[in-house]
Amino acid sequence: MNDNARQQTVEQLQQTLYTDIPLTREMGLRVAAYDGQTLQLSAPLAPNVNDKGTAFGGSLYNVAVLCGWSLLRLKLNEAGLPRKNIVIHEANTRYLQPVSGELHSTCTLTDDALNEFMQPLQKKGRARITLTVTIHQQDQTAVEFTGQYVALD
Amino acid sequence: MNDNARQQTVEQLQQTLYTDIPLTREMGLRVAAYDGQTLQLSAPLAPNVNDKGTAFGGSLYNVAVLCGWSLLRLKLNEAGLPRKNIVIHEANTRYLQPVSGELHSTCTLTDDALNEFMQPLQKKGRARITLTVTIHQQDQTAVEFTGQYVALD
Repeated sequence: MNDNARQQTVEQLQQTLYTDIPLTREMGLRVAAYDGQTLQLSAPLAPNVNDKGTAFGGSLYNVAVLCGWSLLRLKLNEAGLPRKNIVIHEANTRYLQPVSGELHSTCTLTDDALNEFMQPLQKKGRARITLTVTIHQQDQTAVEFTGQYVALD
Repeated sequence: MNDNARQQTVEQLQQTLYTDIPLTREMGLRVAAYDGQTLQLSAPLAPNVNDKGTAFGGSLYNVAVLCGWSLLRLKLNEAGLPRKNIVIHEANTRYLQPVSGELHSTCTLTDDALNEFMQPLQKKGRARITLTVTIHQQDQTAVEFTGQYVALD
């Protein structure tokens, strides 16, 4: 995939999120970067603030759960499976420190992990995968999110 | 606490949520009921919908995490501790079935559990508590949320 195609992919994902999950518009969620293996989402603090002036734990969760979901969505689209649904099945979220600025989430899916996921998916039409998403603040991990996602018809 | 005082408490909580956590306004979050021990929150489907036409997993999380947070907020206010902060420390969320209508969360805090939480809080100024929140659809549990909250100065 060249840079132009990747930029188009990012713009399509942004549009999909805003159209299909309207709360992402209210959060100001942005697809920040995608290099084919790592996806980054971001959101400004103001619409996602809490009573303590830092990022609301629910918004942090949303930026994390959508990072994993979106990366799988991109990978299934690239594999010619745009009609597969992806759902979150279970998630664990650890809040390690408050986030006092923009919300940034990062998720990476290696080729090996992707292959392990694609094999049962293509064979049985259904597969599950566990993804880790981190939210960083400066150089430190502020939130650790682990989500089990299922792809199915 | 009589019915009038409880109604006033519900209205104050509603106002606090809308003022302090603005995303709750966009979600249409409502404080649905409070009997002194059990708190119910609700939100309409439309602003919280996902690509599948059911409730977005992130919105379900928000309605759950805020139910536990709000119940603790009410209990600390009633105990004369309105200045204590409450933060979510860790959460586990299990999605058992999709929610195709209004989002309803319920959390109960028994007097015994509250006492266990209040003792270290009054002694050391800090305490943690694990709360379970459920989201029901008709008579079935759609989402099981377990959150560890910390109250501190």
